[in-house]
Amino acid sequence: MIAAQYIGNKSFQIVEGSSIPPKAGEVRLNVGYVGICGTDMHIYHGVMDQRVNPPATIGHEISGVVAELGAGVEGFAVGDNVVVRPLDYCGQCPACEAGHSHVCQNLKFMGIDTPGAFQNSWTVKARTLHKLPANVSLQTGALVEPLAVACHDIRRANLKSGEKAVVIGGGPIGQLVALVAKSVGAEVIISEVNDARREFSSQYDIATVNPLQQDLPAYVKDWTNDKGADVVFEVSGVQPAIDVMTQIAAVRGRICMVAIHANAPQVDLFQFFWKELELVGARVYEREDFDMAIDLIATGKADLAPFISSVNSLDEIGSAFANIDNNPTGMKALVSCQSEKNKD
Amino acid sequence: MIAAQYIGNKSFQIVEGSSIPPKAGEVRLNVGYVGICGTDMHIYHGVMDQRVNPPATIGHEISGVVAELGAGVEGFAVGDNVVVRPLDYCGQCPACEAGHSHVCQNLKFMGIDTPGAFQNSWTVKARTLHKLPANVSLQTGALVEPLAVACHDIRRANLKSGEKAVVIGGGPIGQLVALVAKSVGAEVIISEVNDARREFSSQYDIATVNPLQQDLPAYVKDWTNDKGADVVFEVSGVQPAIDVMTQIAAVRGRICMVAIHANAPQVDLFQFFWKELELVGARVYEREDFDMAIDLIATGKADLAPFISSVNSLDEIGSAFANIDNNPTGMKALVSCQSEKNKD
Repeated sequence: MIAAQYIGNKSFQIVEGSSIPPKAGEVRLNVGYVGICGTDMHIYHGVMDQRVNPPATIGHEISGVVAELGAGVEGFAVGDNVVVRPLDYCGQCPACEAGHSHVCQNLKFMGIDTPGAFQNSWTVKARTLHKLPANVSLQTGALVEPLAVACHDIRRANLKSGEKAVVIGGGPIGQLVALVAKSVGAEVIISEVNDARREFSSQYDIATVNPLQQDLPAYVKDWTNDKGADVVFEVSGVQPAIDVMTQIAAVRGRICMVAIHANAPQVDLFQFFWKELELVGARVYEREDFDMAIDLIATGKADLAPFISSVNSLDEIGSAFANIDNNPTGMKALVSCQSEKNKD
Repeated sequence: MIAAQYIGNKSFQIVEGSSIPPKAGEVRLNVGYVGICGTDMHIYHGVMDQRVNPPATIGHEISGVVAELGAGVEGFAVGDNVVVRPLDYCGQCPACEAGHSHVCQNLKFMGIDTPGAFQNSWTVKARTLHKLPANVSLQTGALVEPLAVACHDIRRANLKSGEKAVVIGGGPIGQLVALVAKSVGAEVIISEVNDARREFSSQYDIATVNPLQQDLPAYVKDWTNDKGADVVFEVSGVQPAIDVMTQIAAVRGRICMVAIHANAPQVDLFQFFWKELELVGARVYEREDFDMAIDLIATGKADLAPFISSVNSLDEIGSAFANIDNNPTGMKALVSCQSEKNKD
């Protein structure tokens, strides 16, 4: 088998090795497609070297085919198309004991803290797998993971049919959040400065605002008849979004914190008091979110084909990453790990 | 009748006037006792002059006796001891229509936006009244309003029996939040820098931490067996509390924002993402909070007698306010409006 290894400084190497036989409770997959996530780009840019400890095989947005079953694995058969929920939890910490294993206090995120999916053979715990229905392709299957992020955000915000939501930031996750918001019957708009991303939204009939050219609070006030947004999703990670999120939320509005703010921004806590706002952090996903994401794709409620901007083979992984740096308006780049020359 | 009027610059004047006859749906009260709130102190210090527009009669923590009923008022009789929930809402805005009239978008807070209780005769809408049981004195009744604030905070945070809570800030509201937390079966500690306030907590068997001398995060980690606090109440209004609240909260912990932060502080939003924290704003109270507060006092679950630091008559209101500036460790100063010379 072959694997791509991130070796630091925006570089990868392809190494040959042996497939890892699955132990009890494990499954070996022939990897199908792996999406490149924003987090992978952070790793590529070197800012997470201490955590990933290169050389390291990264990648966590994956579809694949069951190739080999370890002892005691039930519910899966060789040949099944699957996706991986890339969370390895301890099962013993207070968070796990409280039923929140996805935010386990000792969580290992597969593809960051442990080896990931940019290889053509990957051995994982069976408990991480979800089966793909026959009508969901392996290419689209690689988008289940980011769609599950969006499903988790919607569930954390408790967004309901008939409510009005604003998504701040129209990158891949923001667009998916807006799609899932529509799928539960909410009305949704996206605030995004980038023309190409606003254009992308239009094919899903999602209205957009360019906050550099339009007055977003005035727009929301008018759109909601003076109420404000029931839910705001902060997916941009910038201070201006933090400034506006408390302005556009309704009394008792919920703000879902999806973005990663590495530097503590200034937050208008007075508005939290005054309007009794709620801020809800959302990280990764739970089993139900993968189930929901697969269902949205299988039933046609979420057509994700337009998200796929490019497909490169595993040995082209370096240029696949470089292309994202050069073309930041693309939505989702996939790496194919199943080409003939990549096979065992 | 006589009324105290705040006239700006830490000064009051006593004026004589005529009682206001109650219109339909209104009730005239002979005012019993009125507590001095932190907000009243802000007004006294001149920082809210634009909102209160002096000369103005302020005061909103009030007990009294029904003296006169307007047309159509049912459920109250002359001689009833009552307290006032000092919220005048519009009933028509989106917040009111959604059932959140206590945070009405056009809310008038009685005693700030409209005339208040520092007078011996006050005419109010009957819908603001709650009856006091026979075993609750008018003095203690004046503490129902701040206790209702604490009840609202507990309900907003959804604090449950068996959970562990940290209250940051041991002023009157922080102490009351801790008492109500205990009453619902939670374990609670208070973080407070002031010796006298920590001493005050000890009479209620509430453990305290001085965060200037002890490592609060280490204390909480140990106290909760590495889990973190289920709920944190931020009642202090200072940046160090904002810094520590995200550290001490458990995975999926709730932080209840009780304090008013006029300047947007820096908030570690990364922790909201990482631990899926929730921040819940809490402002004033709802009808149920007054009911809960009265019940806690009447059943003896909350003995508030130690909170009463001083009682002055209405014509001594100036020195009552000045004393709080000079003795910041006192918990609750009351103004008596029912002395012989104050009566109609």
